[in-house]
Amino acid sequence: MASSAIGSSNVQERLDLEQNNLNERARWVLDAPEPPGVWHELLDCAKETIFPLGNKFLSLRSEPGTKRVTSLLQEIFPVLVWCRNYKATKFKNDLLAGLTLASLCSPQSIGYATLAKLDPQYGLYTSVVPPLIYAIMGTSREIAIGPVAVVSLLLSSMIQKLEDPLANPISYRNLVLTSTFFAGVFQAAFGLFRLGFLVDFLSHASIVGFMAGAAIVIGLQQLKGLLGITHFTNKTDIVSVLKAVLKSVHHPWNPHNFILGCSFLSFILITRFLGRRNKKLFWLPAIAPLISVILSTLIVFLTRADKHGVKIVKHISGGLNPISVHELQFHGQDVGELARIGLILAVVALTEAIAVGRSIASIKGYHLDGNKEMVAMGFMNIVGSFTSCYVATGSFSRSAVNFSAGCESTVSNIVMAITVVISLELFTRLLYYTPIAILASIILSALPGLIDLHEVQNIWKIDKLDFLACIGAFFGVVFASVEIGLLAAVTISFAKIIILSIRPGVESLGRLPGTDLFCHVNQYPVAVKTPGILIFRIKSALLCFANANFVRERIMRWVVEESNHEESEDKAQRTTRVVVLDMSSLMNIDTSGIASLEELHKILDSNGMQLAIASPRWKVIDKLRLAKFVDKIGGRVFLTVGEAMDACLSSEMDTI
Amino acid sequence: MASSAIGSSNVQERLDLEQNNLNERARWVLDAPEPPGVWHELLDCAKETIFPLGNKFLSLRSEPGTKRVTSLLQEIFPVLVWCRNYKATKFKNDLLAGLTLASLCSPQSIGYATLAKLDPQYGLYTSVVPPLIYAIMGTSREIAIGPVAVVSLLLSSMIQKLEDPLANPISYRNLVLTSTFFAGVFQAAFGLFRLGFLVDFLSHASIVGFMAGAAIVIGLQQLKGLLGITHFTNKTDIVSVLKAVLKSVHHPWNPHNFILGCSFLSFILITRFLGRRNKKLFWLPAIAPLISVILSTLIVFLTRADKHGVKIVKHISGGLNPISVHELQFHGQDVGELARIGLILAVVALTEAIAVGRSIASIKGYHLDGNKEMVAMGFMNIVGSFTSCYVATGSFSRSAVNFSAGCESTVSNIVMAITVVISLELFTRLLYYTPIAILASIILSALPGLIDLHEVQNIWKIDKLDFLACIGAFFGVVFASVEIGLLAAVTISFAKIIILSIRPGVESLGRLPGTDLFCHVNQYPVAVKTPGILIFRIKSALLCFANANFVRERIMRWVVEESNHEESEDKAQRTTRVVVLDMSSLMNIDTSGIASLEELHKILDSNGMQLAIASPRWKVIDKLRLAKFVDKIGGRVFLTVGEAMDACLSSEMDTI
Repeated sequence: MASSAIGSSNVQERLDLEQNNLNERARWVLDAPEPPGVWHELLDCAKETIFPLGNKFLSLRSEPGTKRVTSLLQEIFPVLVWCRNYKATKFKNDLLAGLTLASLCSPQSIGYATLAKLDPQYGLYTSVVPPLIYAIMGTSREIAIGPVAVVSLLLSSMIQKLEDPLANPISYRNLVLTSTFFAGVFQAAFGLFRLGFLVDFLSHASIVGFMAGAAIVIGLQQLKGLLGITHFTNKTDIVSVLKAVLKSVHHPWNPHNFILGCSFLSFILITRFLGRRNKKLFWLPAIAPLISVILSTLIVFLTRADKHGVKIVKHISGGLNPISVHELQFHGQDVGELARIGLILAVVALTEAIAVGRSIASIKGYHLDGNKEMVAMGFMNIVGSFTSCYVATGSFSRSAVNFSAGCESTVSNIVMAITVVISLELFTRLLYYTPIAILASIILSALPGLIDLHEVQNIWKIDKLDFLACIGAFFGVVFASVEIGLLAAVTISFAKIIILSIRPGVESLGRLPGTDLFCHVNQYPVAVKTPGILIFRIKSALLCFANANFVRERIMRWVVEESNHEESEDKAQRTTRVVVLDMSSLMNIDTSGIASLEELHKILDSNGMQLAIASPRWKVIDKLRLAKFVDKIGGRVFLTVGEAMDACLSSEMDTI
Repeated sequence: MASSAIGSSNVQERLDLEQNNLNERARWVLDAPEPPGVWHELLDCAKETIFPLGNKFLSLRSEPGTKRVTSLLQEIFPVLVWCRNYKATKFKNDLLAGLTLASLCSPQSIGYATLAKLDPQYGLYTSVVPPLIYAIMGTSREIAIGPVAVVSLLLSSMIQKLEDPLANPISYRNLVLTSTFFAGVFQAAFGLFRLGFLVDFLSHASIVGFMAGAAIVIGLQQLKGLLGITHFTNKTDIVSVLKAVLKSVHHPWNPHNFILGCSFLSFILITRFLGRRNKKLFWLPAIAPLISVILSTLIVFLTRADKHGVKIVKHISGGLNPISVHELQFHGQDVGELARIGLILAVVALTEAIAVGRSIASIKGYHLDGNKEMVAMGFMNIVGSFTSCYVATGSFSRSAVNFSAGCESTVSNIVMAITVVISLELFTRLLYYTPIAILASIILSALPGLIDLHEVQNIWKIDKLDFLACIGAFFGVVFASVEIGLLAAVTISFAKIIILSIRPGVESLGRLPGTDLFCHVNQYPVAVKTPGILIFRIKSALLCFANANFVRERIMRWVVEESNHEESEDKAQRTTRVVVLDMSSLMNIDTSGIASLEELHKILDSNGMQLAIASPRWKVIDKLRLAKFVDKIGGRVFLTVGEAMDACLSSEMDTI
């Protein structure tokens, strides 16, 4: 008797101890320090965004003045850092890469300038100044700067709504330069104010769709050059372009353009195929466009094919970039519109450049500072707008060539720029007889790189909503306009976030055998439910006005179903007594969410059930405490679901 | 020696067993069944929304035909259920409540009709048909149906943009009736298609702000009646109204209106004060408006004050509601606009009715079926639009009176409607001399109930972003217009969801002493970190394009900081070797999120660190598996952070 009494008192003690432990742990939850307030958090976030390397700047202060200046200069001009270790062997590689780049870049630049509805030399100008500025300010070693197809298309499609490039070429050009200036200002501002994350708002999936759509639209635009059509549409959507093409077919048309373009297109594509098969021949596809230009120009010059209907480039002004500061327009009614266009151009150009920069940097294993990149791109476009350049950015195709040509630093960009300057000074007169169809075929040959079918397939496999954003952007660009495609992409992406965030998910949990873990019974079929206790986990991160009522109703429905089920199964068994709400994934709650929890508690209470809360997060427990909800449910707040279960079972034993 | 060998082999065996256990649990994570696809989930969601009580309908099928019809009728007309238990004692209470309601409702209805810029009798009409329809279809017992201030204001402020109520009263009225019809159609459609959740999109906080703003705007509108101003503005914002008032002050104005209005306003407010002090006198504030009307009408009639500048109601047509089906306009250019107005009216009216219905239902402890309520309100407004009623809904103030008058069922609404019919038949002629200032003071006296300062304070205390939505709605209504206020409220609420969802939160975890739990070190200051292993938890529920790069960068920064810290602390200590990512709160991931995890893995790998993943949710592990990310990190996926730690430590021991 005595020993059993001692034994039971021992058990009692151990139970008490356990109870104390439980209580202590529950106190950890309830006595958590106050979470940082909204203002504090905002301040923190701003500080972190603006001074991501806070300590670095603070540590600078203690250094002497000259060193501080040097450090600051090195921050702004990375060239100062790497040029000290720059060696002749590196220069050899850069020279080779730069020359390869120039041979690819010159014909592409002329083609993209026609896509932007500017005179051909403006494409060459854009391949001179921006690469030089980027070379001393940029952090990526492999990016090749210059005009790119998508930006050229975007520019012309937006600005020709304000001014007709054929009727008023000079005022059209002024608008282009002004929007380039605005794009540069926006890019630099993004970088200086550390708003690099804005570029992330164009999701990967929507960029894939957008690029594919843009490739198709650009390809369609090339039909003009390839077919030698004189009257073409200003719209970019597939329906308008095909209508314009069909209309021109009725007129007598000259097949020479088409034959010339197609044969050189085949030539370029074959060289690319050879280049892919044999990595050592990487230079072959890179110089193929230049060879095409030279050959076709010679053919036209020798056969005087221009007299037989082959359209040619004609006069290209030579010489260095003319100063264009006086051409910028900051007055007039279009300034607001130009700033808006500049913003769109800035975002699209940065998206392309940072995407290509990041992918190469991650291959090479170094980190690309997005904000510094933006400042560099911003300045290069601002200076560009003063020197007759339109928006330049990092090109997908040329950066890849630069990378495979083995460039070591941004010196390859400098080499390219100098080469282009030399051609501007010496060779522009030789391009008089270059057929326009060749430029079209050079642009066409660059387009397959923009369409990434493999990635589209991947996106479809992994995330159906991402795929929706992808094809939304694609169809928007192809059937409506470039801007609408972008808008569709951003809208679908954000709608996705809202839908996924407020989707009122509740899942039923069960105990994993042999553990104290409670997991979703569908995800872990081994999990078993405890009779009499229902455990729910709220799946959304927010319990807010948009989903709180739904969550409450679904929990109530499940409670009713479970009770009915239990009743029908075994009338003798006790019915549901406790509902445990696992709040581990709930990051935040608002006043509507708290109100719905209160209502849930009231309804459960009036049906003789108890509500307990397990593992609430910092913000949530703080708000529940502020709203006095913790008191209302009798302090039934626990560190884990397991402890909530233990407490419920032991308190039930007490009451029995 | 031998025993130690046996001992060590025992230890080895136990270690192996544990390892096996660990492996088995990790397999639970990796071998989870495939989660339901997007289409399947959408279908499920739709099914659940449309047939929330699926079993009920299925079980009905097995019943005989007549019973099935009865059940269906009872579903549509709840009156059939409760009328069987209806007793004389209940009717006594309902009669009393209905008469009290009628005495409050009649003067309020006339006032609200003037607010809606309609003839006074239209307010009375609206207090006849809708309450009768609601009485047989509604599920709330206490809601008092009729015209309300906010909807009247919203109606007039939106429709007078289409038609001037003073110049063309008849065509203005037709537009009002048509938009009432549309509002009814939308409400019924919301209910039938179970779109009740749409009403939730106006968050609690923004409703509080919107109502307070509307009260102020309505109060300002009453200045016209109270000051007897003839030329008033059509705009509702505070600046325009105050300008109009100041302008009219320069004209000679008659103080009689003001004195009359203010004295009766004081009378009503005093009776309300008395009613609050003594709960038994609840009827006093309820009939005070009627007494004011009678007294003031008598005073004006006896003193012929209307000859001295006191503005009076003049003729009110008596008789029952005229049929108005032929007045609805479904052709013409304004139909689209009217449908839009109808949609806004439908949402605002439902929001008010469901808010008041829910709060009373939760006091009385019964459940209000939001979808059924919407069908009832929709039908009452559709029928209302056929019988010269404008949009009716459940009124805050009158429902409270109905509740405190002790109503038992919707019979009180029927009593009220019949009483109003009688007054329409007999007493409208007596209202000829009723001063307009009295109507203004009756409306003014109802406004303080719309401003809930205590709740505003509560919202501020609990959720600062909710507060922003609240004051956004308030200032939008007060300084711009009712519509802009609503728009501001919805925009801020959804922006809040986006911001909270994509906010790139990462928290550092530590072990709670004596447990296998790993918690946020700031929330639980008792938690301790394990040297050499960094544990991070992603705070957002979505790792998507908008926050993936930020999360990656923040983790990298912390890793670098911790490594530096550890190095400086003790060079001999091993530095960070493993980074464990707790994904327990991550509900979903998209392709950008996976890409950024891959990049994180690459960078960590190149720095000699390992990445491990703990407790991924269903969707996340499925997508990571599809994207082959699990293989890339060498299958280091664990059920919990604790097991990840154990595995890392043991594998480290193996390598040592």
